[in-house]
Amino acid sequence: MKKKKIKIVTIGGGSSYTPELIEGFIKRKDELPIKEIWLVDIEEGKEKLEIVGAMAQRMVKAAGLDWKVNLTLDRRKALKGADFVSTQFRVGLLDARIKDERIPLSHGIIGQETNGAGGMFKAFRTIPVILDIIDDMRELCPNAWLVNFTNPSGMVTEAAIKYGGWDRTVGLCNVPINCMFIASETLDVPLEELTFKFAGLNHFHWHRVWDKEGNERTEELIGKLYDPAQKKKPKKDSGVANIKDIKFNYEQVQDLGILPCPYHRYYYITDDMLKDELEEFKKGETRAEVVKRTEAELFELYKDPKLDYKPEQLTKRGGTHYSDAACELIASIFNDKKTTMVVSTKNNGAISDLPYDSIVEVSSIITANGPQPLNWGKFDPAPRGMVQIMKGMEETTISAAVTGNYNKALHAFTINPLVPSGQIAKDLLDEMLLAHKKHLPQFAEKIETLEKNK
Amino acid sequence: MKKKKIKIVTIGGGSSYTPELIEGFIKRKDELPIKEIWLVDIEEGKEKLEIVGAMAQRMVKAAGLDWKVNLTLDRRKALKGADFVSTQFRVGLLDARIKDERIPLSHGIIGQETNGAGGMFKAFRTIPVILDIIDDMRELCPNAWLVNFTNPSGMVTEAAIKYGGWDRTVGLCNVPINCMFIASETLDVPLEELTFKFAGLNHFHWHRVWDKEGNERTEELIGKLYDPAQKKKPKKDSGVANIKDIKFNYEQVQDLGILPCPYHRYYYITDDMLKDELEEFKKGETRAEVVKRTEAELFELYKDPKLDYKPEQLTKRGGTHYSDAACELIASIFNDKKTTMVVSTKNNGAISDLPYDSIVEVSSIITANGPQPLNWGKFDPAPRGMVQIMKGMEETTISAAVTGNYNKALHAFTINPLVPSGQIAKDLLDEMLLAHKKHLPQFAEKIETLEKNK
Amino acid sequence: MKKKKIKIVTIGGGSSYTPELIEGFIKRKDELPIKEIWLVDIEEGKEKLEIVGAMAQRMVKAAGLDWKVNLTLDRRKALKGADFVSTQFRVGLLDARIKDERIPLSHGIIGQETNGAGGMFKAFRTIPVILDIIDDMRELCPNAWLVNFTNPSGMVTEAAIKYGGWDRTVGLCNVPINCMFIASETLDVPLEELTFKFAGLNHFHWHRVWDKEGNERTEELIGKLYDPAQKKKPKKDSGVANIKDIKFNYEQVQDLGILPCPYHRYYYITDDMLKDELEEFKKGETRAEVVKRTEAELFELYKDPKLDYKPEQLTKRGGTHYSDAACELIASIFNDKKTTMVVSTKNNGAISDLPYDSIVEVSSIITANGPQPLNWGKFDPAPRGMVQIMKGMEETTISAAVTGNYNKALHAFTINPLVPSGQIAKDLLDEMLLAHKKHLPQFAEKIETLEKNK
Amino acid sequence: MKKKKIKIVTIGGGSSYTPELIEGFIKRKDELPIKEIWLVDIEEGKEKLEIVGAMAQRMVKAAGLDWKVNLTLDRRKALKGADFVSTQFRVGLLDARIKDERIPLSHGIIGQETNGAGGMFKAFRTIPVILDIIDDMRELCPNAWLVNFTNPSGMVTEAAIKYGGWDRTVGLCNVPINCMFIASETLDVPLEELTFKFAGLNHFHWHRVWDKEGNERTEELIGKLYDPAQKKKPKKDSGVANIKDIKFNYEQVQDLGILPCPYHRYYYITDDMLKDELEEFKKGETRAEVVKRTEAELFELYKDPKLDYKPEQLTKRGGTHYSDAACELIASIFNDKKTTMVVSTKNNGAISDLPYDSIVEVSSIITANGPQPLNWGKFDPAPRGMVQIMKGMEETTISAAVTGNYNKALHAFTINPLVPSGQIAKDLLDEMLLAHKKHLPQFAEKIETLEKNK
Repeated sequence: MKKKKIKIVTIGGGSSYTPELIEGFIKRKDELPIKEIWLVDIEEGKEKLEIVGAMAQRMVKAAGLDWKVNLTLDRRKALKGADFVSTQFRVGLLDARIKDERIPLSHGIIGQETNGAGGMFKAFRTIPVILDIIDDMRELCPNAWLVNFTNPSGMVTEAAIKYGGWDRTVGLCNVPINCMFIASETLDVPLEELTFKFAGLNHFHWHRVWDKEGNERTEELIGKLYDPAQKKKPKKDSGVANIKDIKFNYEQVQDLGILPCPYHRYYYITDDMLKDELEEFKKGETRAEVVKRTEAELFELYKDPKLDYKPEQLTKRGGTHYSDAACELIASIFNDKKTTMVVSTKNNGAISDLPYDSIVEVSSIITANGPQPLNWGKFDPAPRGMVQIMKGMEETTISAAVTGNYNKALHAFTINPLVPSGQIAKDLLDEMLLAHKKHLPQFAEKIETLEKNK
Repeated sequence: MKKKKIKIVTIGGGSSYTPELIEGFIKRKDELPIKEIWLVDIEEGKEKLEIVGAMAQRMVKAAGLDWKVNLTLDRRKALKGADFVSTQFRVGLLDARIKDERIPLSHGIIGQETNGAGGMFKAFRTIPVILDIIDDMRELCPNAWLVNFTNPSGMVTEAAIKYGGWDRTVGLCNVPINCMFIASETLDVPLEELTFKFAGLNHFHWHRVWDKEGNERTEELIGKLYDPAQKKKPKKDSGVANIKDIKFNYEQVQDLGILPCPYHRYYYITDDMLKDELEEFKKGETRAEVVKRTEAELFELYKDPKLDYKPEQLTKRGGTHYSDAACELIASIFNDKKTTMVVSTKNNGAISDLPYDSIVEVSSIITANGPQPLNWGKFDPAPRGMVQIMKGMEETTISAAVTGNYNKALHAFTINPLVPSGQIAKDLLDEMLLAHKKHLPQFAEKIETLEKNK
Repeated sequence: MKKKKIKIVTIGGGSSYTPELIEGFIKRKDELPIKEIWLVDIEEGKEKLEIVGAMAQRMVKAAGLDWKVNLTLDRRKALKGADFVSTQFRVGLLDARIKDERIPLSHGIIGQETNGAGGMFKAFRTIPVILDIIDDMRELCPNAWLVNFTNPSGMVTEAAIKYGGWDRTVGLCNVPINCMFIASETLDVPLEELTFKFAGLNHFHWHRVWDKEGNERTEELIGKLYDPAQKKKPKKDSGVANIKDIKFNYEQVQDLGILPCPYHRYYYITDDMLKDELEEFKKGETRAEVVKRTEAELFELYKDPKLDYKPEQLTKRGGTHYSDAACELIASIFNDKKTTMVVSTKNNGAISDLPYDSIVEVSSIITANGPQPLNWGKFDPAPRGMVQIMKGMEETTISAAVTGNYNKALHAFTINPLVPSGQIAKDLLDEMLLAHKKHLPQFAEKIETLEKNK
Repeated sequence: MKKKKIKIVTIGGGSSYTPELIEGFIKRKDELPIKEIWLVDIEEGKEKLEIVGAMAQRMVKAAGLDWKVNLTLDRRKALKGADFVSTQFRVGLLDARIKDERIPLSHGIIGQETNGAGGMFKAFRTIPVILDIIDDMRELCPNAWLVNFTNPSGMVTEAAIKYGGWDRTVGLCNVPINCMFIASETLDVPLEELTFKFAGLNHFHWHRVWDKEGNERTEELIGKLYDPAQKKKPKKDSGVANIKDIKFNYEQVQDLGILPCPYHRYYYITDDMLKDELEEFKKGETRAEVVKRTEAELFELYKDPKLDYKPEQLTKRGGTHYSDAACELIASIFNDKKTTMVVSTKNNGAISDLPYDSIVEVSSIITANGPQPLNWGKFDPAPRGMVQIMKGMEETTISAAVTGNYNKALHAFTINPLVPSGQIAKDLLDEMLLAHKKHLPQFAEKIETLEKNK
């Protein structure tokens, strides 16, 4: 049976990541019989969509492919009959992220755009939109897969599945693949000879690694990465552009016995990270600000009508491998490839310590029927407690995002380990609600009251 | 790094299955750098060991291989430095199995050599021996993998891991692979285009199946196999030689919604199976008796000094694919192949409804570090209850086998759905204890009392 | 604050139990400020309602109380403004129970009106009615407590809470209190000096017992009740009129280590119970038939216009203490008495081995807010498996009762340990569906097909 | 049967709490047939023991009782044949507590002597001693109950049961009873008319409250205590002398929907508490310093040979009702009173969100066989996450206390929500290890290295 040709839709198509996505598709042209790619964006993103969209068209053409690359602001038109919908949008654009990071720092608090106060606000802004998209999908492409790589990827995926009821959602992130590259490089073992097992939540997972003789190499890798007495310094251990290479406490990670992800720095060495971020804050060099400049440069490059390949500079942007992971996921589902990937998907008991209906990020076999997680079992008490508090925070945040319940939002702030609790949490919450009011319709009533009482 | 050559030991090497095992190794000669194969048996099995051992040597020679095939009655000598130990022995030989089947039937009760009264006695006889083997392994080959395909494979594996503390044990069975062949044939889809998920206990598992478009085909397969209104009859649905093709109740299996394994006939259509077995009992044609005759014929064949390949007749023996599965498992572990196989391994939460430390039979990725189960999650209430009562029975049986506690043995009989509870269970237990007394040292004291009171 | 006077409604008020209920209220006149009691029945029960209702009125009068005892066939009129609704009705009356017991026995199968095939049919007939009653209550007495002692009490209570959404339902049974009397008598320790802990399902629970020095007396009690070597024979160990005193296997119960309930005889000594019931069947003396005669005699007594107290003969009826338990429960809720009682209520983790949302029968503190279960934890493997298969059967039965799904009904029959699976289960199911068709509207379509194919 | 007279031993008998304990026994003289009370202390506490011991003797005499009150430094002599052993000792005395509080504050970190960095060090110092005591008890009074009210009471109890294997340990705290008094006073309902349900960990539990009509009053109580718009101010809401009445965020507690305990202030309004404690720190008025002065005054009072009753001033000390709770617990166990108390005991599934073998603090019925917890079930996501991280921290801390594993201690510091993670956590840990080195033999090796590297 010959497979039909596929239609792929990318919401947030005007993103600077799009060239990587297009490159990813081109690389897989033999296994992905693409008919059309639709890049969708909103009015505010029109200019970027046109720039990056034109470049995408040039890339496809240069590859000698007959794929139709459509640019549109009409989401519903794009979604009609789609097979795969990927989401990489950013409600409020980078300016919102700047607020997510700078407002907390102005109170001496880490913002963290994925699971700190900033990330919680990103969830508040994004979740209503993803639920809207799902409403459209239910009508226009009821069998499509939703490949979400909008952050906070875990919370957005949980909202899509639990509240949106869209079981065919898979959440993606580039952090795990970067961890694998680091392990390979540090152990000096080719990637394909290593076996990994990841489990946890998005930006809050741990992993173990074995070689092809079946020997666990986790402890050795911890030593090579974090032992200050180690002679040969690892080139880089965070692996993601947006996280500084501040070292974990070797003794603590030794006791942990499994590898933390780079984002664990925010939780395991909070104070050191905060100091570093406050420095950046003072210099106007928070990650969001840096990214904004990088993006501007990228778009200048993209405008070049002769550029028809992904430029090297995109790597600096961070999020590298993100789009490639999305392409690989789509190819794996489409071709039932049984690739092992780390994705956000339904727990169903794979991590015993977390609720059955939670979304977790876990090594999975990707089949035509979606991800089949490898079983992880239980964590040791210390990481168990950490992953559980984060899941409690995530659930509370998602519920606040869906309902616009202020008390719940405050409760989520209160229990997030990155936000100091008390009056300061309330002040921060209120300030951020006001700052983002344009993109928080569900909190409109509360925001109005706040404005009156200012 | 060049891998060292490997030493494989087979306990119960005089088994009629051995040619399939040897054939399996020969098929994989390119991926298994075998140095020596040791076939071990006990004094009573010496003749068979010599016959089948000689044939194994001819097979290896005919394949042009330099592997050394050693025959020995000295288990400790064989185990020294082994890399893989496979177990396919039968304490008390086929005569014990005949008792396992005929004594219960003489009371109008199904014997069932794997999880009925017969299988419980097989566990009583086998578990002390497997624990002895492990004691030797601890001393002589502390890094070896134990590949158990001695029945009752699940209970023996659970005893090896829980009581023997041998984590590197994997239990194997040929039933799942047979179920896959049937699915492929019945759906008329090549095996490699189907994806399966199995979960449950040994000889008590269920499965689901998807095609490479990601569509679940389970319901369709249930219809094709069990709907009496189905026009095209499936050739065979039990798939294992020792289980008659008596049909399941279609309506019940429809409600089940997942595919039962052939052994579920004993639980889902007990009465029909019993009637059939009572017929065989009267004719002296219980499965054990038939097998005994088949084996005698096989050994006659094996004596032929010109026979140097696995004869077709072995297939009739039942247990086909058993040894091949063992070879594939060994190759997968040795080469870190990541093959998906269905094995008995530690649950660790893969099946939410069963204890964390239970052994379950579940689809797993086979790595150099052993099986990594795919997560299954929860069953629906009806199969959930069934798998839970069976696990309770298994745990109680294993505990009785290890301790020789008569009360516990009676309790296990009482709750086994195949044994009618009450005085009849006690009578049956006592009769079987006496019949098997030679192989039940742990129950010696009780047996002595029973003999006195006869 | 003076408490308002209360209105109590009894559905199935024409039951022969009613005098015990009335006696129970009279005994508690000082703590229960009753205003009205409504005895409700259906047209077919009118005569009995009038007889027993008149007697109830005499009893109240003789006690010098001003309670209004109303008799009605109009359920909605009775329910209006009720505070407590107790249910003790029997859909199809005793003739249905005779079928529940005799049809299975005619196939050589135990009927068992509470959790065998008979009890499953009682669930099929009763659950739609209890859901109807709840619909009325939602409208007419939204704050009332539903005290169910209609069998199968556990399944009916689970249906009321899970499917009817009536959280204020408590299921009751007289078996636990009878077990306590037996323990007290057998150990020769006053009841008030013993502490009990019960857990399991209705008619399928186990218990432990301690004295006031904190010593566990469970093992001793097991010995005194079931050790055949025991010199002093216990007077009676089943404790309920409808269960013969056939002895458990002492060795099995020793291994169990906790006390089974009398109904466990059906599961732990099935064969012995079956033989006994087949004798009764032949003689036309199944329990239902005996009860029918006893009831007829009782109603003759009740007709006596001078009888104004509960006659001794009612005790023979079985179900003694049933109504008294209901009165005590009502008094405990009304007065926030914190009495410890064994009731069917939401599990919420009290028994770790069963689903969180299951109904279980468990020792509970009765407060004005309903039962607060004592935590039980885990069972040992053997009783764990038993209680789990029964819960699986219960859930499947309830679901079949609510939906009228024939496949599910067959599945429930298939897994019930008291029903032999296979063609015989289907034949039995079909025969019982036809026999009870008048009271099984939800299965109407299937029954029609069965009738056509007869 | 007449009960034998009892021997009670109090380790840490020189505590200023002892008069309350003695008073508690005297109040219960009719239900507690005491023969001897042994007050045990160590050499450093000799003077206090003699002062408070003499006073205890005067109190008993004044009550006209013939109890023998013995003072001793010989723990083994005291333990011989004991029925109840209560523990209220403080390793390192109040000076150690001062360090527990002041060292963290000197880094701008809350010390918190029960579950902050201070409490963790108290666990490090106390757990080895409690395990020693248990070793003695195993030999000298194998049936005695251990009533622990040494802080951190939950962790010490978990160590005693899990590592010491002393199942007859019950942990006690005065916080729950104080919460009940506040509820009664604030709702203006007599205590005996309220029903409470508590669950969580020591100093980290929540509760709900109902009146005798069965109406839940939790939400109303939250409003009366924490709604800033509430007109009538509650007199006091923390209820314990050592916790300031800084208000919770009303909105957050509303979302919580259950009542936090006073210690939750450290987690729910961390920043506000920290500011307050820093003020005290500067003034030399941390809680430990205040207590030290209060104690000195108390001992001056106790010296008065005419004082033969508990002086009013003891209430200021904090910990009021602590000793009374211990006396009530002892009386309840001894007399099988079935009192409902909140104690630290084995979870066994009572709180579904925590490990089965954890120690939890939960409403329990106190029988002669120890506490029988009421089932609690699951928490909502936010408190669930909080209680889970704390349990993870507790388990890690206890394990570090038992093994002296520095990496584990650092890991426990890292995940404790009150300790900022990173280099600061390590610095704090190291400084505290050095400061307490005298009482941390298990960490001796690490401390030596630290000293060398200073």
